[in-house]
Amino acid sequence: MGKVYFVGAGPGSADLITVRGAKALAQAEVVLFDALADPALRDLAPLACWLDVGKRGFVHAHKQDSINAMLVRAAHEHEFVVRLKGGDPSIFGRLEEELEALAAAGIDCEVVPGVTAALAAAAASKRPLTRRGSGRSVAFSTAMTHSGELRAARSADSEVFYMAGRQLAALSRQLLQASWPAGTPVCVVSRAGWPDQLISDHRVGTLALAAVLHAGRPTVVTVGAAACGVSAATAPARTIAATAPDTRPSRGTVMPPASKRIESI
Amino acid sequence: MGKVYFVGAGPGSADLITVRGAKALAQAEVVLFDALADPALRDLAPLACWLDVGKRGFVHAHKQDSINAMLVRAAHEHEFVVRLKGGDPSIFGRLEEELEALAAAGIDCEVVPGVTAALAAAAASKRPLTRRGSGRSVAFSTAMTHSGELRAARSADSEVFYMAGRQLAALSRQLLQASWPAGTPVCVVSRAGWPDQLISDHRVGTLALAAVLHAGRPTVVTVGAAACGVSAATAPARTIAATAPDTRPSRGTVMPPASKRIESI
Repeated sequence: MGKVYFVGAGPGSADLITVRGAKALAQAEVVLFDALADPALRDLAPLACWLDVGKRGFVHAHKQDSINAMLVRAAHEHEFVVRLKGGDPSIFGRLEEELEALAAAGIDCEVVPGVTAALAAAAASKRPLTRRGSGRSVAFSTAMTHSGELRAARSADSEVFYMAGRQLAALSRQLLQASWPAGTPVCVVSRAGWPDQLISDHRVGTLALAAVLHAGRPTVVTVGAAACGVSAATAPARTIAATAPDTRPSRGTVMPPASKRIESI
Repeated sequence: MGKVYFVGAGPGSADLITVRGAKALAQAEVVLFDALADPALRDLAPLACWLDVGKRGFVHAHKQDSINAMLVRAAHEHEFVVRLKGGDPSIFGRLEEELEALAAAGIDCEVVPGVTAALAAAAASKRPLTRRGSGRSVAFSTAMTHSGELRAARSADSEVFYMAGRQLAALSRQLLQASWPAGTPVCVVSRAGWPDQLISDHRVGTLALAAVLHAGRPTVVTVGAAACGVSAATAPARTIAATAPDTRPSRGTVMPPASKRIESI
């Protein structure tokens, strides 16, 4: 019986995987993956058998069961199995179900952490998720519940919403209901960590305007203290924070995509 | 004028840095670092000049100013400067102040994200930070404020406290005051990602008992849904969640340190 390594691939671009994750891929006999963000990840395990478990062919209701079964079977047939997950396996990665399936089958496993999308968005936009004084806590959640209900809280100094790209207008309404002032800064980042990443600045009240810009791209939405830009020259960050909201409507400011990646320097 | 790369080193063990971060180190002429968790990180930039800016010799009040000044000077003298930070630069990394200093000096920079301690602790303990149904949101905060005041909230389904190792008794009291039931599961992980990582299970009411075990080690404390173990065999996780607390006192269960790392397999 083999061992399963849950590996966080990072937010997309292959070079945001950890060195430990890359080493696990290099040793893998079989790799189970969902939608593969960067085909270059395959180069890290060129001889492994790559199984796409994110296929739409599965009947939706049984998809997770099918993945669990394939994982258990792979561990019966191979020594070194990698289950590759986007971002970090422990954050919105459905890791619990797969850990349970392996535990039930008595199969050993290990989890290799990865860079979750919120961290990549913060790095891309140079907006630290925690700030001295004004941003002591940050919460991660999905805007959409399992039952399809949209929810937004105001629980921490900053809130990061995953998988919210299609729900920006509704998210704006929910944030207002959750007592976020209309002028609270919101930073929207899509395809963080890629050369074509897009970063745009909005306000809670006018967040819907971000929808067209980021349409069809993996999107992270940051609300509150962590959405403020950092700059000594303009220094609007601290004064615009949630405690002293700017209530002017804003169409949003789009930052140009970062064109450089370290490997091209 | 050079460019500064803020690089997240990950939670400790050198192989938890990203591939992009390792490449940045390989190109660095100078590396500014605080306490270096793993000396093996130096092997990623053997020819660079390594500057320890975490030295206790600095006058505490001016320490951040001194680091800012050294960073600006390094960028004036070198093309490729790496500012290495533990974990992820955007989470409790004092990134804001250093970004401001560079912006004021007109110096270009880039942020390479890393694995933050909460993710490493979740991976080490195999406790996903989000759970279907019971764990939709997770919040990160420091237990201790800048002014030395201890605070603990109950804002998300799960709360992760950084740098709480020395404050476990006080944290227990604060959690009770913040309406967490005494029987709520707490998972304490120290030196996550290392061969000698320690994981122990507790309850909010008896968290103080973890203090001796993890004394003097970098410690992450997870409270709520994400602290529950995952196992189909025993399956206590969901029933013990915060909604149906087990109020029995518990001395805590210590899991043996994980002895395997991928590179040793």
